[in-house]
Amino acid sequence: MQPLPGFRDFLPDDCAVRNLIFARWREVARRYAFVEWDGPPLEATELYRKKSGTEIVDQLFNFTDKGEREVAMRPELTPTLARVVAAHEREFKKPLKWFSIGQFFRYEKQQRGRLREHFQLNCDVIGEANLAADIELVALCIDILRAFGFTDKDFVVRVSDRDFWTNFLREKDISGDRWDELLQAIDKFGREPREKTVEKLGKLADPVFAILKSGGKSERLDRLVDGLRARGLADFVSIDVGIVRGLAYYTGMVFEVFDRAAKFRAIAGGGRYDNLIGVLSDGAVSMPALGFAMGDVVLGELINETAHVREKLENSIANSRKIDIYVVIAKEQCRADALGQIQQLRDRGYLVDYPLTSEKVGKQFQLAEQLGARVAVLFGDEWPQLKLKDMSSGEQQLVSKDDFMSHVETILR
Amino acid sequence: MQPLPGFRDFLPDDCAVRNLIFARWREVARRYAFVEWDGPPLEATELYRKKSGTEIVDQLFNFTDKGEREVAMRPELTPTLARVVAAHEREFKKPLKWFSIGQFFRYEKQQRGRLREHFQLNCDVIGEANLAADIELVALCIDILRAFGFTDKDFVVRVSDRDFWTNFLREKDISGDRWDELLQAIDKFGREPREKTVEKLGKLADPVFAILKSGGKSERLDRLVDGLRARGLADFVSIDVGIVRGLAYYTGMVFEVFDRAAKFRAIAGGGRYDNLIGVLSDGAVSMPALGFAMGDVVLGELINETAHVREKLENSIANSRKIDIYVVIAKEQCRADALGQIQQLRDRGYLVDYPLTSEKVGKQFQLAEQLGARVAVLFGDEWPQLKLKDMSSGEQQLVSKDDFMSHVETILR
Repeated sequence: MQPLPGFRDFLPDDCAVRNLIFARWREVARRYAFVEWDGPPLEATELYRKKSGTEIVDQLFNFTDKGEREVAMRPELTPTLARVVAAHEREFKKPLKWFSIGQFFRYEKQQRGRLREHFQLNCDVIGEANLAADIELVALCIDILRAFGFTDKDFVVRVSDRDFWTNFLREKDISGDRWDELLQAIDKFGREPREKTVEKLGKLADPVFAILKSGGKSERLDRLVDGLRARGLADFVSIDVGIVRGLAYYTGMVFEVFDRAAKFRAIAGGGRYDNLIGVLSDGAVSMPALGFAMGDVVLGELINETAHVREKLENSIANSRKIDIYVVIAKEQCRADALGQIQQLRDRGYLVDYPLTSEKVGKQFQLAEQLGARVAVLFGDEWPQLKLKDMSSGEQQLVSKDDFMSHVETILR
Repeated sequence: MQPLPGFRDFLPDDCAVRNLIFARWREVARRYAFVEWDGPPLEATELYRKKSGTEIVDQLFNFTDKGEREVAMRPELTPTLARVVAAHEREFKKPLKWFSIGQFFRYEKQQRGRLREHFQLNCDVIGEANLAADIELVALCIDILRAFGFTDKDFVVRVSDRDFWTNFLREKDISGDRWDELLQAIDKFGREPREKTVEKLGKLADPVFAILKSGGKSERLDRLVDGLRARGLADFVSIDVGIVRGLAYYTGMVFEVFDRAAKFRAIAGGGRYDNLIGVLSDGAVSMPALGFAMGDVVLGELINETAHVREKLENSIANSRKIDIYVVIAKEQCRADALGQIQQLRDRGYLVDYPLTSEKVGKQFQLAEQLGARVAVLFGDEWPQLKLKDMSSGEQQLVSKDDFMSHVETILR
């Protein structure tokens, strides 16, 4: 009677939280004039094999379908985005500002707090090489978290630059085919034992550790922070060259968002992937691009841990669940008449509930209260008059069935 | 560069249609005081094997995962619902009125108009045996289609009763293990060659054909139609015992919704499955239940074919895509100031766009128009004054940066 390990059932309370997260994501992305799109949850495995590095492919939910195709449940959206943009880019003015909300899958080892699915917001800008796009994207990420009520006391965006490290590797005369592996080792610094990092980095270990300790200099990142300062968002960001990102396709600016207490994994992360669309289209379409993803699981944990944010969210949910009108059926002979009125109320867009079978009047009023109804209407001995109760003031009045609708509208206005 | 066969990319136009369908589904389900939930898209294959009949299992996207589990991408929601309800029923007051919007998968033979995935609305009532629940559910299904603008000239709900046929099979002394197969043959009548149905039904062919021709009588269905009449919905429904539903778990009332012109496959379908929760929980939890599902593909085809509905939907989409404000940056020296104002506008919840890089002023106003902006604001030589243009009236005014926000609010109110 359980879901598969690492998968969640969303009972109504869980689903309300999830939907509220989606609503905030959508709302702020729209403020930034991003438009929504989506890809399929199943793709050819090939799409991920060459583009995302080896780690992600080991963690795929992949299989051979009944048509002998190698397929995989999507672990991330960016390869799909690159595929779709390469196929359709002529249909759109550049830059594209696209966002998407969907579910993603990884067959990770089961650990506490690590699921095998999560929902992700993806926001991407395609076709703009200017740093203004990087600033816009990081600002969007910050504003999404602000919309939940988080402040600069709660989270920080750590920005970095892959070029900083690829320049370093080039200076050290490291051949390009080792870069992916070395960048991943630097990315994992602090998250795996130091000896393991030393082993992977070899003679590069000492200079890398020195840079990580002193912090790197990057004119590009300074300009990025200046751009955020113009928007009043500088306090949300810090430069940290220790951020490298695990995926192989990143090319320039990269960033990750963490809670200030550093209790959780990254809340969001992303960066530039200027070559990916070209690689995926075998050079047919080449466009600079950048994006980030934010998952619902870590975000949900942080919301739970942050009292002022959790309270705000719980209030929103409680309000969104309230119905408008509960129809109390005190006499079964009135049921057909009540149903006629219920239909008219719903046709006007009101949220209306009533008992499907005979039920004590007291219990019905109790249920009206539990459902958060603002009005209760009683169909009983008074018919063709109705008893109308304003549930917040407790006031009751007797109205004729012909005046009933305008009275309800007055209370609910 | 293509998605897998039978899978869709949702480019922004497609995604807008999909989201509008979801919004209508959600809106009307909420009017009926249904609450939203969701299950995982991947389940143990076992969940579908015994409950849904053989046909659905042959069409599963199923595989063995990296932990040697037999798993399947969900082909329908009802088995998950039964699993979740059996596990959690004590936490909820009955009856449950639950709905869910999600994606489902079938490995069907590729045919024109047959996809391998679609989105479905599922609405279910759990824990109520009374026919009032059947009436409520069918009314909800009708009102959802009415919310798109469809009328009784566009679609019809064909209601039937499985008991009608199981009583018939019992009278004819047919052993229970053949019922599933015979019900499926009756269900397929008219959709496969008559000889094939005759072959499957054997000596039952003549009496079945006679019933299908004359129409059956059912007191339960008469009462169902009466209940819909009390709501003014009788014109949307007709009794048709030819509706049987392919899935093995249905027990009582069943229904399917078709376009009046009978051009498309069923738009929606469902019925009672009073035994399923008991079967899935090995008898631990037994509850009457009923529900229906409506898919986005056939519905989308019918919307496209129905001019008055399509027009309404296109207008809604066009309106929902408009931004509020386009910020024209006429001088690059003003960009930092403009960004500060853009941030404040977005903080107030407005949808704001602007050019990421230097662009001709005329082009920027053109873009403002294309994006449906209601206000354009120009940052240029006039700074610290701003030129404000009401895009619908064409009126322009010069305002100081301090008065700017209240002027924008006035136009947008």
